[in-house]
Amino acid sequence: MAVQAKPDRIRLGMVGGGRDAFIGGVHRIASRIDDHYQLVAGAFSSTIEKSKLSGLDLGIDEDRSYGSFKEMAIREARLKNGIEAVSIVTPNHLHFSVAKEFLKRGIHVICDKPLTSTASDAKKFVNLVNDSDALFMLTHNYTAYPMIRQAREMVAAGKLGDMRVVQVEYAQDWLSTELEATDQKQASWRVDPERSGAGGCIGDIGTHAFNLAGFVTGLKAESLCADLHTFVEGRQLDDNVHIMLRYEGGAKGMLWSSQVAPGNENGLRLRVYGSQGGISWAQEEPNKLWYSPLGEPTQLMTRAGPGATDAANDVSRIPAGHPEGYLEGFATLYKETAEAIYAARDGKSIDTLCPGIKEGAEGIAFISAAVSSNKKNGNWIKLG
Amino acid sequence: MAVQAKPDRIRLGMVGGGRDAFIGGVHRIASRIDDHYQLVAGAFSSTIEKSKLSGLDLGIDEDRSYGSFKEMAIREARLKNGIEAVSIVTPNHLHFSVAKEFLKRGIHVICDKPLTSTASDAKKFVNLVNDSDALFMLTHNYTAYPMIRQAREMVAAGKLGDMRVVQVEYAQDWLSTELEATDQKQASWRVDPERSGAGGCIGDIGTHAFNLAGFVTGLKAESLCADLHTFVEGRQLDDNVHIMLRYEGGAKGMLWSSQVAPGNENGLRLRVYGSQGGISWAQEEPNKLWYSPLGEPTQLMTRAGPGATDAANDVSRIPAGHPEGYLEGFATLYKETAEAIYAARDGKSIDTLCPGIKEGAEGIAFISAAVSSNKKNGNWIKLG
Amino acid sequence: MAVQAKPDRIRLGMVGGGRDAFIGGVHRIASRIDDHYQLVAGAFSSTIEKSKLSGLDLGIDEDRSYGSFKEMAIREARLKNGIEAVSIVTPNHLHFSVAKEFLKRGIHVICDKPLTSTASDAKKFVNLVNDSDALFMLTHNYTAYPMIRQAREMVAAGKLGDMRVVQVEYAQDWLSTELEATDQKQASWRVDPERSGAGGCIGDIGTHAFNLAGFVTGLKAESLCADLHTFVEGRQLDDNVHIMLRYEGGAKGMLWSSQVAPGNENGLRLRVYGSQGGISWAQEEPNKLWYSPLGEPTQLMTRAGPGATDAANDVSRIPAGHPEGYLEGFATLYKETAEAIYAARDGKSIDTLCPGIKEGAEGIAFISAAVSSNKKNGNWIKLG
Amino acid sequence: MAVQAKPDRIRLGMVGGGRDAFIGGVHRIASRIDDHYQLVAGAFSSTIEKSKLSGLDLGIDEDRSYGSFKEMAIREARLKNGIEAVSIVTPNHLHFSVAKEFLKRGIHVICDKPLTSTASDAKKFVNLVNDSDALFMLTHNYTAYPMIRQAREMVAAGKLGDMRVVQVEYAQDWLSTELEATDQKQASWRVDPERSGAGGCIGDIGTHAFNLAGFVTGLKAESLCADLHTFVEGRQLDDNVHIMLRYEGGAKGMLWSSQVAPGNENGLRLRVYGSQGGISWAQEEPNKLWYSPLGEPTQLMTRAGPGATDAANDVSRIPAGHPEGYLEGFATLYKETAEAIYAARDGKSIDTLCPGIKEGAEGIAFISAAVSSNKKNGNWIKLG
Repeated sequence: MAVQAKPDRIRLGMVGGGRDAFIGGVHRIASRIDDHYQLVAGAFSSTIEKSKLSGLDLGIDEDRSYGSFKEMAIREARLKNGIEAVSIVTPNHLHFSVAKEFLKRGIHVICDKPLTSTASDAKKFVNLVNDSDALFMLTHNYTAYPMIRQAREMVAAGKLGDMRVVQVEYAQDWLSTELEATDQKQASWRVDPERSGAGGCIGDIGTHAFNLAGFVTGLKAESLCADLHTFVEGRQLDDNVHIMLRYEGGAKGMLWSSQVAPGNENGLRLRVYGSQGGISWAQEEPNKLWYSPLGEPTQLMTRAGPGATDAANDVSRIPAGHPEGYLEGFATLYKETAEAIYAARDGKSIDTLCPGIKEGAEGIAFISAAVSSNKKNGNWIKLG
Repeated sequence: MAVQAKPDRIRLGMVGGGRDAFIGGVHRIASRIDDHYQLVAGAFSSTIEKSKLSGLDLGIDEDRSYGSFKEMAIREARLKNGIEAVSIVTPNHLHFSVAKEFLKRGIHVICDKPLTSTASDAKKFVNLVNDSDALFMLTHNYTAYPMIRQAREMVAAGKLGDMRVVQVEYAQDWLSTELEATDQKQASWRVDPERSGAGGCIGDIGTHAFNLAGFVTGLKAESLCADLHTFVEGRQLDDNVHIMLRYEGGAKGMLWSSQVAPGNENGLRLRVYGSQGGISWAQEEPNKLWYSPLGEPTQLMTRAGPGATDAANDVSRIPAGHPEGYLEGFATLYKETAEAIYAARDGKSIDTLCPGIKEGAEGIAFISAAVSSNKKNGNWIKLG
Repeated sequence: MAVQAKPDRIRLGMVGGGRDAFIGGVHRIASRIDDHYQLVAGAFSSTIEKSKLSGLDLGIDEDRSYGSFKEMAIREARLKNGIEAVSIVTPNHLHFSVAKEFLKRGIHVICDKPLTSTASDAKKFVNLVNDSDALFMLTHNYTAYPMIRQAREMVAAGKLGDMRVVQVEYAQDWLSTELEATDQKQASWRVDPERSGAGGCIGDIGTHAFNLAGFVTGLKAESLCADLHTFVEGRQLDDNVHIMLRYEGGAKGMLWSSQVAPGNENGLRLRVYGSQGGISWAQEEPNKLWYSPLGEPTQLMTRAGPGATDAANDVSRIPAGHPEGYLEGFATLYKETAEAIYAARDGKSIDTLCPGIKEGAEGIAFISAAVSSNKKNGNWIKLG
Repeated sequence: MAVQAKPDRIRLGMVGGGRDAFIGGVHRIASRIDDHYQLVAGAFSSTIEKSKLSGLDLGIDEDRSYGSFKEMAIREARLKNGIEAVSIVTPNHLHFSVAKEFLKRGIHVICDKPLTSTASDAKKFVNLVNDSDALFMLTHNYTAYPMIRQAREMVAAGKLGDMRVVQVEYAQDWLSTELEATDQKQASWRVDPERSGAGGCIGDIGTHAFNLAGFVTGLKAESLCADLHTFVEGRQLDDNVHIMLRYEGGAKGMLWSSQVAPGNENGLRLRVYGSQGGISWAQEEPNKLWYSPLGEPTQLMTRAGPGATDAANDVSRIPAGHPEGYLEGFATLYKETAEAIYAARDGKSIDTLCPGIKEGAEGIAFISAAVSSNKKNGNWIKLG
């Protein structure tokens, strides 16, 4: 469980994440937990004045708070101690253009999900990353929970036998009313096709569910059948998602995501069943993994508890029974990215479990397919 | 909570339920819990010898143990103290022909689900019941749990607002391997198209899930989209069911039923979400109903506890905190049927919440539609 | 799981259990579940008129509804088909004098707990039972849950190693206010020293907790230290019980019982820890037994599920996942007593797990010791 | 939920927390989460060589890694940019002498619990803190969970009515065997009277339970009755603690703490009952607070969810449903201490909810009383 920081921390910049933003703050905390980063620059808002105010809050030198991400990229790339990495925490539709400026200058990118707001941007994004020497990481943070890492390892080790059924869901309730009609900042961009793209609930949280199912099972989805719906009058994007999935090799899946399900706060839940056993995990109790070997009593595997595997222990900071949380999941991604960056400093390349451009593109393909299937009254649509 | 038996108990017969049978015993226990019935005759097996042996176990007079249900119907109808009601606990394909013999002689019928093994039998069955003066009751036992009664009442009272999303599932694991290849009696008839009809898992437990969702929400399913699959090699009927549903009025639903999901014993679970709130219930913890009024903390409603409604209290026998069970659900159906029969003795008719011929026919239509949709690669199929 | 009734059911009488009574009805249901009894006589109330009315409800012949239990005992003993067994469901202070009349006439007794309302009655009771040829059974119903039977078997088999710590609790909330000041019948006799004896909460439910801990662990309590308290003003008996226990062999225990703990309906919970493992069980989820072998993941053992032992399966009526309940626990005691009576008919004697006179006396000793310790400001008091 | 760091972070030192230490790392992470501290100096080990190695890992300037805490205190107090605060994360017996050196030089102290290993040190410690201008904070981290803050606020607001019953427990299993006989560093000092004092389990975790009960209820314990025991042969200090408590105003309590209870990882659990309601909370699911208003359904209050109070929201960093954890509890204490230090910089004084010297002394008194009571065979002992 040793988590050692390098004395020479990574110089980090941020685009987005100014005052009132939510996810930017989460990224900053996560970057500090394992002490591998030092935030030294930012384009926190789209005007220089607001950006400087946010920079001031964060202890950033005034001349390194920028009003434009492009200006920031150009200048930081030239500075002797310019940033080595940048976190992109803007609305989805800006991810690509921001990332482009940094990647082409060799600055590593940590980007919030989903990758883009359009499928065409996603394609260009893939090329961009492939052509760049810099690293790219996408924060599908739920993949970093220790017990998810363990679940993945158990599936890969054959503990569940042949994959049969995947039940994944991600339900929330905060958009049960037309919250966007108020000035709620989090709601307004998420339901705006301009900023979010063609998917509402499916882009915001459905992608997480889809990504998590793939991460744990290692299965590639082959086709899907979707029923997307908008329940709240006046809303432009879907707020409830019903999808059936068919995976390569014959496994079947169901995915439900909703933002209009009262009583669900952040109900991401995954159940996977194979010929030899099943597992069940819920994000709101992330330290528990239920493992049911066929014909034996169900076992409660806990983070750092008896039966925990290396994959879980490697990303666990504290002893069993002390609930690690959401922030720590983020922090793990940052840590692993840091390891990759440290390696890159030495001209080396290492493998990490961090989601990257591939997973980002898959997420977008997933959204497109779901929207298409839905338009066609739920026909089966092939994926990639 | 007063549960008063009539001194003059109902004379009950049974078809099926001989030695080794499972559900027959459950029916008998349920019939005794509230002391409204007296089992006095039976055609427990298809041979007279076996039937008499079972009758002996049960304290039935030897001359009222029959080797043929037809003979039983004819003779009992003529006896001065012949049976007033009969329980049918045979495999599905026999339900119709057995019920016919009794109904046409004015003997009330309590029948296990699903109604029949074919859609054509189901249609004839509807006519038969409509043309008969005798009562017909189908044991969708899960509708009789107190908290399910309460859930239904809450939905009807508008506590959840407009219906939006219905998530229902019924998962088991006991058919994860080819159990039918052994001599396991419960498995063999359930996976045999001759005796079960076109649906395997969907007929055996999917119908329960479908029925329960309709019972609680009061919604009529309009169309569905199904992906049925057989995972266990050599099996003839489906063992995993994925279905998306569209209900009248715009609500959307998902139904998962499976008999190959390790770790699930009898995992029937219902979640319903409306514009004003949500509820969640699981059969394995039947005394708990989770109610989430929009924007307020989730409440744990318990059987006979604070907040319990009349609908729940009326079918509750013991105080809060004392777990009532599965058998009692059955017993409630018997009790309510008894009330109907008592009324019938006096030439009166009363309304009960017992599922009957209508629900039976709906279940069969549901199975047919699911099988059809599945054959057509999951196209949307209209229901009834 | 086969539960076969004898054709020649046991003729049963009842003392107490008239209209408005609670536990009498529970006993009657329990007696019917496995179909071993036939209720044929009763002294349901202390006046002949009321007793006959209750008898009428229950289908008892008018001349076998009595106004006095003594009269009933005398006459039934003389009848050719008089009762073989009697259920005593009166308030505690009457148990002894009622039982005496039946036992001395060779009629088996099934008696509700606690045994008596005084320690002196308890002593006489022991002699009475020892001197009688008739059987005596005390309904500590919680010992009959399948998973409690399994827990007991696991401890006896050494699965937990040497016993170390016993944490048992039984918390309710229904006496949080002065309910006895209203006309609530259940409350009034329970808080009345005349009818209940020196213990309030400790006699009503504390004895159950104490009995259950002993049943599962097989440990004999050696001494205790008690802090009994009455929180509700005007109440005469204790409504909250704090006790520390020392068991033979060195194990330590804690017992909490309370009837003033809001949010607890019937919160009987047992946790036992030994040198090699621990177990945890809660009555409100009776089908789950949590087993933690030292250094391994905790396992969820379920009724009739994988890992269930014979001790559990023998008293289980239905498959895993179908919640069996409280009534069935009672029914198991009746069934086992029936087996003992059947054996007695043949002049044989068999061992059962039913609590009897010994456990009854132990419960009373427990109450006395607790009351004493409490009077002495919580000094350690030796038990029996 | 805004968590703003000051640009001018607090310069922090640490005593203890070298390589292999556990709690030092936790403190460091916690200090970073809200970005109010900068770790710049340390006496991480008792030799200069080891200390420098640890300092190197942490990016500390070589000349600010010390081999002696006294030397560190003297020099840092003289430096222009010397530390303003120090974290003490040594074994218990050193807390006092270390704190003394810093406090007397005006350096704020953040100290791990329990305060000291002896009651006499605790008394001197109280005087020391009272005589110093510097701040002192003790990391009873469990008091910083949002739902614990809410529980405290609810009790204070009278939501539970008059306090009646307090059930608190803290159970672990990691010392079920003689772990100290191996080289396990965490185990060895905890069971060594030289380093831990007279209490083993009671000092290590019992104090947390005791502190938490007092924090939430606001009740002062008046007397107690203890049964401490050592189950593991060869161990010198207690490994299981049974205590009954009497609080001012008449409430009664029970405290169980154990390190030999298999299946318990970090099972800190608090239940409080009053005349008007009850609450229940468990550290392993820290975001849930169960609230049972008398006569109404139990409510599930969640962190940042509907019904969350200011006291909870003020220490909550992320939205509902995202599990915050153990580290964040620590971080909250650091944040609040930071606010106090910021105020101190300006010559001001503010109130915080951080536990301090008073709670530390109370903890020690609690341990002494428990040990005494135990020695006297569990007599009632008055608390300070």
